[in-house]
Order: sequence, then structure tokens, then C-alpha cells
Amino acid sequence: MLKGIPKILSPELLKVLCEMGHSDRIVIADGNFPAESMGKDAIVIRCDGHGVPELLDAILQVIPLDTYVDKPMNLMEVMPGDPVKTPIWDTYKEIVAKHDERGAACVGNIERFQFYEEAKKAYAIIATGESAVYANVMLQKGVVIN
Amino acid sequence: MLKGIPKILSPELLKVLCEMGHSDRIVIADGNFPAESMGKDAIVIRCDGHGVPELLDAILQVIPLDTYVDKPMNLMEVMPGDPVKTPIWDTYKEIVAKHDERGAACVGNIERFQFYEEAKKAYAIIATGESAVYANVMLQKGVVIN
Amino acid sequence: MLKGIPKILSPELLKVLCEMGHSDRIVIADGNFPAESMGKDAIVIRCDGHGVPELLDAILQVIPLDTYVDKPMNLMEVMPGDPVKTPIWDTYKEIVAKHDERGAACVGNIERFQFYEEAKKAYAIIATGESAVYANVMLQKGVVIN
Amino acid sequence: MLKGIPKILSPELLKVLCEMGHSDRIVIADGNFPAESMGKDAIVIRCDGHGVPELLDAILQVIPLDTYVDKPMNLMEVMPGDPVKTPIWDTYKEIVAKHDERGAACVGNIERFQFYEEAKKAYAIIATGESAVYANVMLQKGVVIN
Amino acid sequence: MLKGIPKILSPELLKVLCEMGHSDRIVIADGNFPAESMGKDAIVIRCDGHGVPELLDAILQVIPLDTYVDKPMNLMEVMPGDPVKTPIWDTYKEIVAKHDERGAACVGNIERFQFYEEAKKAYAIIATGESAVYANVMLQKGVVIN
Amino acid sequence: MLKGIPKILSPELLKVLCEMGHSDRIVIADGNFPAESMGKDAIVIRCDGHGVPELLDAILQVIPLDTYVDKPMNLMEVMPGDPVKTPIWDTYKEIVAKHDERGAACVGNIERFQFYEEAKKAYAIIATGESAVYANVMLQKGVVIN
Amino acid sequence: MLKGIPKILSPELLKVLCEMGHSDRIVIADGNFPAESMGKDAIVIRCDGHGVPELLDAILQVIPLDTYVDKPMNLMEVMPGDPVKTPIWDTYKEIVAKHDERGAACVGNIERFQFYEEAKKAYAIIATGESAVYANVMLQKGVVIN
Amino acid sequence: MLKGIPKILSPELLKVLCEMGHSDRIVIADGNFPAESMGKDAIVIRCDGHGVPELLDAILQVIPLDTYVDKPMNLMEVMPGDPVKTPIWDTYKEIVAKHDERGAACVGNIERFQFYEEAKKAYAIIATGESAVYANVMLQKGVVIN
Amino acid sequence: MLKGIPKILSPELLKVLCEMGHSDRIVIADGNFPAESMGKDAIVIRCDGHGVPELLDAILQVIPLDTYVDKPMNLMEVMPGDPVKTPIWDTYKEIVAKHDERGAACVGNIERFQFYEEAKKAYAIIATGESAVYANVMLQKGVVIN
Amino acid sequence: MLKGIPKILSPELLKVLCEMGHSDRIVIADGNFPAESMGKDAIVIRCDGHGVPELLDAILQVIPLDTYVDKPMNLMEVMPGDPVKTPIWDTYKEIVAKHDERGAACVGNIERFQFYEEAKKAYAIIATGESAVYANVMLQKGVVIN
Repeated sequence: MLKGIPKILSPELLKVLCEMGHSDRIVIADGNFPAESMGKDAIVIRCDGHGVPELLDAILQVIPLDTYVDKPMNLMEVMPGDPVKTPIWDTYKEIVAKHDERGAACVGNIERFQFYEEAKKAYAIIATGESAVYANVMLQKGVVIN
Repeated sequence: MLKGIPKILSPELLKVLCEMGHSDRIVIADGNFPAESMGKDAIVIRCDGHGVPELLDAILQVIPLDTYVDKPMNLMEVMPGDPVKTPIWDTYKEIVAKHDERGAACVGNIERFQFYEEAKKAYAIIATGESAVYANVMLQKGVVIN
Repeated sequence: MLKGIPKILSPELLKVLCEMGHSDRIVIADGNFPAESMGKDAIVIRCDGHGVPELLDAILQVIPLDTYVDKPMNLMEVMPGDPVKTPIWDTYKEIVAKHDERGAACVGNIERFQFYEEAKKAYAIIATGESAVYANVMLQKGVVIN
Repeated sequence: MLKGIPKILSPELLKVLCEMGHSDRIVIADGNFPAESMGKDAIVIRCDGHGVPELLDAILQVIPLDTYVDKPMNLMEVMPGDPVKTPIWDTYKEIVAKHDERGAACVGNIERFQFYEEAKKAYAIIATGESAVYANVMLQKGVVIN
Repeated sequence: MLKGIPKILSPELLKVLCEMGHSDRIVIADGNFPAESMGKDAIVIRCDGHGVPELLDAILQVIPLDTYVDKPMNLMEVMPGDPVKTPIWDTYKEIVAKHDERGAACVGNIERFQFYEEAKKAYAIIATGESAVYANVMLQKGVVIN
Repeated sequence: MLKGIPKILSPELLKVLCEMGHSDRIVIADGNFPAESMGKDAIVIRCDGHGVPELLDAILQVIPLDTYVDKPMNLMEVMPGDPVKTPIWDTYKEIVAKHDERGAACVGNIERFQFYEEAKKAYAIIATGESAVYANVMLQKGVVIN
Repeated sequence: MLKGIPKILSPELLKVLCEMGHSDRIVIADGNFPAESMGKDAIVIRCDGHGVPELLDAILQVIPLDTYVDKPMNLMEVMPGDPVKTPIWDTYKEIVAKHDERGAACVGNIERFQFYEEAKKAYAIIATGESAVYANVMLQKGVVIN
Repeated sequence: MLKGIPKILSPELLKVLCEMGHSDRIVIADGNFPAESMGKDAIVIRCDGHGVPELLDAILQVIPLDTYVDKPMNLMEVMPGDPVKTPIWDTYKEIVAKHDERGAACVGNIERFQFYEEAKKAYAIIATGESAVYANVMLQKGVVIN
Repeated sequence: MLKGIPKILSPELLKVLCEMGHSDRIVIADGNFPAESMGKDAIVIRCDGHGVPELLDAILQVIPLDTYVDKPMNLMEVMPGDPVKTPIWDTYKEIVAKHDERGAACVGNIERFQFYEEAKKAYAIIATGESAVYANVMLQKGVVIN
Repeated sequence: MLKGIPKILSPELLKVLCEMGHSDRIVIADGNFPAESMGKDAIVIRCDGHGVPELLDAILQVIPLDTYVDKPMNLMEVMPGDPVKTPIWDTYKEIVAKHDERGAACVGNIERFQFYEEAKKAYAIIATGESAVYANVMLQKGVVIN
């Protein structure tokens, strides 16, 4: 643990977030996302038992979202015809608003199978224990200005 | 994640608990325990951000405590003269009572420096984010009877 | 060994099943399946000496079959003209029926060479000692709801 | 699988048995033996789900017991005062008699803690799923005369 | 060394032969075959100093040839115009006849450059010290019926 | 790079500082310290070209010094008879005073050869390019209270 | 550290520069460049906390720029419409002029996305803490004449 | 060192030459050749400080050149318009004539960029300290007849 | 294979013999010697299926025996009371006489358990398939004078 | 190769010399020194085919000898009664005099078996092809002052 850094960020996750540069992406995957198989070419970090919101909030304390693109944060789009509700998205947007002045406006959607393809190319995938559905988040890191 | 198994147990932790045999020990360390240095000869499993109680409860759902010894679960003894309170110990004892009929009677104490020596010989050490003090737990696995 | 978990599931197999997410596939291969060469890009787990039925039964105790597809379990189709009988398929269907309410209806077939191609892309392949022919099984994991 | 070789012998186990020379020892451990921690300096081979008798029988088909010592096969002695019965020992002795003309006469006992010390120095330890108690076996390989 | 198994089969070779399944292929290469470069994606086993015939004979004692194809054993075809004689092929055919009732009928030829391409996809390549020319052999494993 | 964290802290150094627990020690070694040989059993982190003061200042922003001991920071004592001056020590003390209220009072000295022995047991050693003499620093991490 | 060699050059960086041959390229990346993801197939060397100019100056002391091409040193071209200023480029050109008689004339530009593609094929990427924008440099090594 | 074998051949180089089979190629690269980057998929052997002639002479003592091709030894062709002289080629031809009766007749040229492509596919690349230009040599191993 | 070097010497064995220096020892072990367990700290080279004499003869062609000691070659002494005959020793002595002018005079004996202790400290152990008893040989390398 | 650095220094040797700190030692071993076995706990660098003098000269161009001890360079003492001459020692002393003003005065001797013990603790051992006897050199690195 370190002073002033959320303790949910493991040493390895901190290292990975620090290694990432401008435009690199990281996926915070829910508990049913096939993180290990999608992440064969990526770094997979286990955060079993944690929900996505607390990780999202902690991560956004240490990395900025990319301001060079309109939608530096993306969610997996609900499949056409699927009646499921995604109340966790509102939570995500509130968290983003705490860290990025664009708020919900910088949150986009990616069609499900396109999301998988993008996830395979991410720098890292975090495997959480989030039980909500359609709860995966993909973040694109911005420029750090100290 | 698996059916009927607490999702806080990561794939690797599940593997380690399954590998352990009768009399092997595992330490659930609090957030300030020097888990990595003590665990140089052990398997270190990161559970950053989690408290000890939820891990203890989950672990005792899948491994029995050793019935061949009187104190299969041990806490780090408070240093003489240290006025600190350890209310988390009561929580631990309630959790043990849910899983072992001996309840608090099977919970012992180990003097601080002896605890360190024992920890170095454990099969595995779990690094949590538990912020309570004197919150380390050492468990000795019993015989599994299917 | 762990409480309440079939002891035929080795620590590594348990870890792999737990790592798998929604839509990941695992092959339970019979004793003559070229598991190591097909599994060059997969995780190969040795279960020499065991039959497929006991493994299938144990695995279905901890992972659900995918409900998003009609046939989350597939067998290797008998080659046209091959007079061989596959009584073990009935056993498989009885086992599935114990764990999934769709029963035999969710069991499909894949043509032999297509089966090989699919197996190469599976997350893991289990090499058993099953001596029955056409006894390979491919399972697709569903969503775990705790 | 190979022609004429028991299929319970995995490729790795076969390799290990073949690598062993005169006087090397191998432990066939029951399901509660702490095989991984005792075997830190040895080769540990997982045979989860199998009983000791079928492995013992298969192994003695390919390696001879040492004829240079009186007791090339040893069991873990029952602790003084322990009323437990060990009927599996009779099974073991019948199996030995099939492969070694000395029969039960070449089976000895080693006191429990001494057994642990010897196990740590063995060439390999096989982790089985045997549920019988005091069911561990230590074998010492003899000279192979083709 | 093991009882009843030819001692020319090293522990690693035995393991590889056991790992192979139905339709996997292994090359027994002569001393001038570029085994290491052809075998970059395969397992290369060194048997320096041995001839191909003794290895062929030993290997066919533990694995069956594939009965699903007409030519489960193949030799490298002599280049058009090359006046070289290949008396070792007769030896090979005698050895095959000892182990497979089809005898020489199940031995085919593969054109030289095609042979190289096939060799690169084999499960394993054995590098021998065979000094005869055109002495490479490719075997396809059949179904083991215990 | 991360928001709010000194950019001189590399991803790996950040990971190591985060892994350290209460009482673990880290050495910030000057450019002539035999960091690689002393650190054979430790983690060695290269920070070539940097001075010790900027690293010390950055590190104390993320880890607290141990309050359980009087001297959680130690310098290598000047050898008896050596007339060398160590003005960098004053810089160190000013830096410490910024981060720990005990200031220079918590800075001790360790005799040269004892320092080497302690360094060998540290969790990590940072190899800098500091050209000042007697400029090595050993820090002992305290309890992190978020 | 070595006599006469800039101490900012770490042992590993020195090794990499020495390994490079005629026409090999190395990128000195600024602090926000995605060095780790671009460098998946390259060697990535961490120089956190350092600026690009001091590294450029040190590197050009030990490697010559390629004289077989007109532009052995390349900068990332400013995106069309981007009003950003790049004063650090003047610094770079002064440094080059100290080491190569062609001076600024041998410094070219590469369009941003082409720069990324070239960077992926470089022999090595150095990750610095440079905070200036458009501050990445790609060098092509020339022939060393002792 | 070994009796009767040139001591310039390191243990690893000897091993590599011995592993090579008929038609495998090895490059003896001059000091400016990008051996490490060209040899990413090959085995790279460092012979820093040595010239190519002494290595060529030593290597031809232990491996024959391929007699199945006209030009088993190839040099990098001088670029059109390049006035450079290559006196070292005469030395090479004298060395070849000592070991192969075809002498200079078996030495060919490969166009520069084609040479790079071929080098990438060689079994091994030797990095020397040869300072002559256009001094790279590619050898194709022949059949060894003991 | 290499010109003029016995083809029974594998690439790895050749490398090991070349790496050995003055006074290093190598054991040529018979087929029942526990080569892998004795060689845990040594390099173990498999030469399954070969006898000791052909290896001894080949090895003495490339390494000299140590002339600084009286007995650079040692055999395992027959146990007191053991009536076994060791005719293979005569073969060994004839082979030695071909390569070292001291002949049988430089061949000594080491008591069995002392031999084991010495073997553990050898640089390498060769595991052969030699079926003769008391057939192990330990060689001490001398100075190579080219 | 690098500008201004002797090309006999390989990339790895340069790295090792740079990693060494004040008081670390490196052995430049002659061709018969058992470098690999003595260097089991050290870094062994192959410089086959080179003599010790050219390496000594190159190394002293980049590292200073330790001025804190009287004899930072040591030779292996001739065994009592051995009439061998060591003319190479004069060459060594001339080389030292070029780089260290103390000249031959800083060159000491270490008794043979003590030399072996010290060599085992060195940071690195360089294996050369030097054929002179008693030609081993042990250097102790001093403080680098840029």
C-alpha cells in the first residue's frame, strides 16, 4: 500500500497503469467476461471479488481519460432486442463526472462483437467479480501533465 | 467464477487451497504485513483492497481446520504494553464458529516474532488490504472428507 | 482437495474452469484424441486414466452451460459410413440432464474436421484415458449467477 | 497412451519412473498428504481422483522394487494410541505379491515424522485422491535387468 | 530404464510417444537431416549415435501405426535422376512387418520437398546418427486399444 | 506516468514500493555501490543517471517511514580516520523533515560493513548515478494509514 | 558506471546500443508515448524521470548516425492544424550538430501514424519522462569505424 | 577447449554447428551487420573482437560445404555504383580452397537486400568484430560422411 | 554431426565437454545409476541406449585426462563381499591406453558411497543404457594444449 | 560496436562491467580454467579464442582499479616446486602501468586454492582462450569519478 493511492490498486495494476501511454487502452471486465482468453496477448490482472465501480473510481484518480478523442470511455452496447436494464451505467457516468469535466458526454458504446475485437488489442484487461450485466468498461488513457 | 464457490476466491487462490494438504498452513495477512518479503519461499497471492473477514469466511467454506491440533487458527499476539484494541478478533471468532464446531476455542495466539518465523514457512500468504491492526490470521488445513 | 468439490478436479483444472468466462470452451478429450498437438495454443490438462463421464459430471457441478446458444455442448459427429456405435453419448446426455434443464436438447454435433478446428481454439483441452470411441465433448461455459 | 502400458500412467509419470535409477524413491501420497509442500525439492505429479492401489499396481508393472534392501516399500506407521484401522494395507500387500516374490515381507513401516523427512528427499511425489487414511506408500526402485 | 520397455527409448521420448494421439506424426530423422531447423515448432529429441532401425523397432513396440490411412509410414522419395540405392528401406519394411500385419504395404513415399513441409508440422522429430541416405521415416500413430 | 505521482518513480519501482510492508527496507544506493552483487537476493532497480536526493524525495511522498523504530532511515557511517565530508547528508535531512515530523532525529548511521550486511537483506536496492560519497540511504517502511 | 561513458547510460542501454548494427533504429520516447505497447516486439528500456535531450546527447557520444541515408534522425511531425510549438526540436538539432557534421540537415520528420508503425519495428524503445510534446526521436545507427 | 578443435569455436558455437543438418545455413557477420535484429528468429552467437577469416577457417574444419548446390558459400554483393574494394574476399577464397576442392568456384554473391532476407531465415548468425566492409559470409552445410 | 568428431557425441555433450576446464569431472553412468537425482546440481545428459565403452572412447578423443593427479579416471569399487565380476573394467583400461600413455595405471577406484558424494559435485553426468554392473566411470579433465 | 570503446568488449561484457560497483571483482580466466563450474553463482562470459592481455587492456580502459586496497589485481601464485615460468605476468604489469599509476605495485598474488575460493565469489568470470599457464587475473573495481 502507498500513501494517497487507493488501496484497491494492486502493485501490479499500479505498474501497468503507469506503463500505459497516451492512447493505450485498458478493459475493466465484469465477472463473466472471458478475460483470460480475450487477454492472451494482453496483460491480465485479477481483481476477483471486486465490483467495477470501485475500480473505475480508483483508476480515474491516477490516469486521465484521453482528450484527443470524443469517447475515451466505452461500454458494451446492449444487443438489439435484449430487454435487459443497465443501471450500473449511471453509476459509471457519475464516477466519470468526478474525474473528467466532460462527464457522461465522453462515454460511448461499442457493439458487442466489435468490443471483443477491441478488447483483444487492449494493453491490459482487469478481471473483476462484478455481477452486473453489460458492465464492461474500456478506458483510453490521455496525456499526463504533472 | 464457479457455481457455488465464493467469487472472492480467485482462480489461483482456489488452486492453492486445493493443493494444500493436511497440516499445511496459509496466512491471510493484513495490508501492512510484509507479505512479499516474508513469502519469498512461499506462494504470495494478492487480494488487494479486500478485508480479512470476507476472505476468512470464503476460505473456511472450502477448507476444514485441522482437528488434530487444538489451535488450527492463530492470531498475532498483541505486544506487551501495547494498548491497542483488536475488535476484529471477535469478528474472526464468529466466522470460525460458522464453520467449525469448536468455535473460538480453536483460535490461538502466536507471539509477534514467532508469527513471522512461522509465516515464512507457510505454504502461501494472502496479501489483503485489511486496515485493522493485529489482523493477520494463520490457518492450518485439516483432513478433507468427501 | 476441497470441501464440497469433486476430488477428480485437480487444482489446475479448478483454476482453469474458474478462469473461463462466458462463451469460453473446454474440450474433454478421449484417450486417443491428439490433445497435445491440438492444444498447442491452449492449456492442456492431463487426466490420464479417467473416463470422460466422471469428469463431465464433476465439471458440470461447477460451471453452467451457456444459455445464449442452443447447443452449448457438442460431440464429434460419426463419419459418414462408419458403422460404429456410440452408447457413451446416452451416458453423456443423462449427465447433462442432471445439471441443465434443457437436457439432451442442448447437445449438438460437430463434423469431425470442424471439431478439430474448433478444438484448436478452445481455452483448454483435458486429456483423459477414455477408451470409448467418438467420445470427445466440447463444452461452452455460461454465465455464473451467484 | 502406449501399447502394453497401463493408461493410468501419464506421460510425465512414465518419464519420471524411467528417469529414476537404482535406490531412487517415489511416494504415492493419499489425498490429504501435503504433497506440494513436502515436494518443494521434488517432482510433484498430480493424479487427482485416483486411488493409491491402481497406481501402485501400474507402477510395479514397470519398475522393480530394490532387492538390495529388505524393505523397499514403506508405509506410514500408525501413531501410538491411534485406534484407526488400515485395511488398505492388505490390498497393498496383495498387489506387491503380484510383482515381487518377497510379497508382504518386503513392506516396512516408517514412523510418521520420519516419513515426512524421507518424503522431502524422494525423487518424486504423486498426489492422488485416495481417501483411505495412513494410505501413503514409499517405493524404492531396484535394478532393471532387460 | 523400465521393465519391458526398450532401453533405447529415453524418458523424454517415452513421454512424447505417450502424449501423441491418433493421427499425430513423428519423424525419425537420419544424421544429416536438418532436424533442429525443421523442428522449430516441434519437439526435437536427440538420439545421436543411434541408427534409425533400432529406434523404429523400439518405437513400434509401444505405438501402433494408424489403420485409418493406407500409408501411416512414409519415406523420403529418391530425387528423380539420383542413382543412389536405399537398401535400408528393406530393413525398415522387415521391421514394420514385425509390428503391423499390413507389412510393407503400409509404407509410402513422400516427395522430398513435401516431406520437409510435412516434417515441420510433425509433433516431434528424432535426430539420430544414421549414416544411410534417404533414411528418414515419418510415422503416423494409430488408435491404442488396451 | 500517473497523475500526482512523481514521474521519477518508474512503473517497477512503484510496484516494489507498493509491495513493501511494515518494516521492509529499501536501499537507495549511490553510483559506486555494488548494487547488483549486494542485491543478488533482492530486487535491483536501475535508476542510472539520477541523484539520490530526488529519488528520496519522491519515495517519501508515497511511503511513510517506520514509527515503530527510532531510526527508520540510516546512512553509511564514515570510516574512522576518513577525512571526507558528507554535505549531501544535510540535503537528506531537509528532505526527511518535509515528510516526517521527526526530521533529522529519525536518521541514524550504520557502520560500513554492517551496512553491507543489512543491504543484502533489504527487499530492494535502487542503483542510482549519485556521485557524492557515503551517499547511500536505507529506508524502513512504516504503516500506511489511508 | 564506466570511465568516460555518460552515467545516464544504464548497463542494459549500453548493451543494447552495442548490439545494434548498421541501420538498426532506436526510439527515444517522451513520457506520454505508449512505449510498452508499441514495443511489444522490441526491447523496452525504462529511463523514467529523464528528459530526451540528455539521453540524446549521451547516446550520440557512443553511436554514429547512419551516413547512408539522408535523414538518420526523425521527429514525429506535428498534426495538420495543431498549433502546438516544439521548441525542444531546436535543442535536439543543437545536440546533433555537436556529434554529426551534417547537423540539422540530417533530421527529418515522419507523419504521426507512420511514426507509430516505424516505432513498432525499431530494435529498442527508450521510455523517458520527457514532458515536452512531439518530443519523440528515432535514430538510425551508422557504421562504427574504430 | 577440446583436443584438435580450434579454440576460437566456443562451446555454444560448436553445439550449433553440430546441430545443423544438410542445407542449414549460418551467417558469419561483420562488426556492423545488424546481427541481433536480423537474428530475432535465429540463434545469435557473439564472437566480438574476432575477424571473419579466422572464424571461417575454423568452421570449415568441422563442417563441409553443401555439394548439392553450386554456391554453398555466398557473399553480399557490392551495391551498384559503390566504388569500395573488397580485398577480404580473396582471403575468403583462399580459405575455402583449403577445405573444399571446388575452391573459389563455389563462392557466389547475393544482392544486398536479398542477403538480409536470407539471413533472417538462417539457422544461426555469428556476430564478429570484423571491420572490413562487405565482409559478411553465408555458409550452407553439406552432408557429413564419417 | 561434425567432420572428424565421433557422432555419438551429441551437440549438448560436445558443448559440455568444451566448457569443462582443468580438473572438472564428468561421470559416465551406467543404466541403473540414479543420474537424475545425483545430478540435481549438475548437468545431466541423456545417452539412453548407449554403452559406456563407446562413449568413453569418443570422449577421450576430445578431452585429455588430468596429468596433475595420479588417478584422473575412477571406477566404483566393488562392495566388500560382493562376488560380482567386472569384466567391463578391462575394456575400459584398453580404451584408456589408446588415449593416455599411462594406461591402466591412471585408473583408480572410489568406494561406493564416496563415489556418490563425488558424483553430486561433478560438472556433468551422462546417463547411458549400459547394462553391465559397477560400470560407472568418473573422468577428470586435464589441460588442453593445442 | 560503439564509438571509442574497444570492440573486444561484447555487449554483455560491457553491461557486466557497468553493473559492477566499488569492490566487485571479475576474473579473466585462461583457457584451461574451470570457468563454468567455478562460476555457477557468478555471471560467466565467453570470450573464446581471445588472449588475456587484449581483454585486460580493454577492460582497464573502462574500469578503474580499486585504490582502497593495495592489491586490486591478483594473479594465481605458482605452486611451490613448480618450475614453470610466467612471462605473461610481465605483459600484464605493462598493461596495468598504462592505466594505473601504481603500476606493478598494485599487482598481488593469491595462493592457488585460495584463488579458486575467491573466484567462486566474484561477480563475473570471463572464459578466454589464453594458452599461457598461470595466466588468470582477478580485478577489483574502484570508484568511478566522471
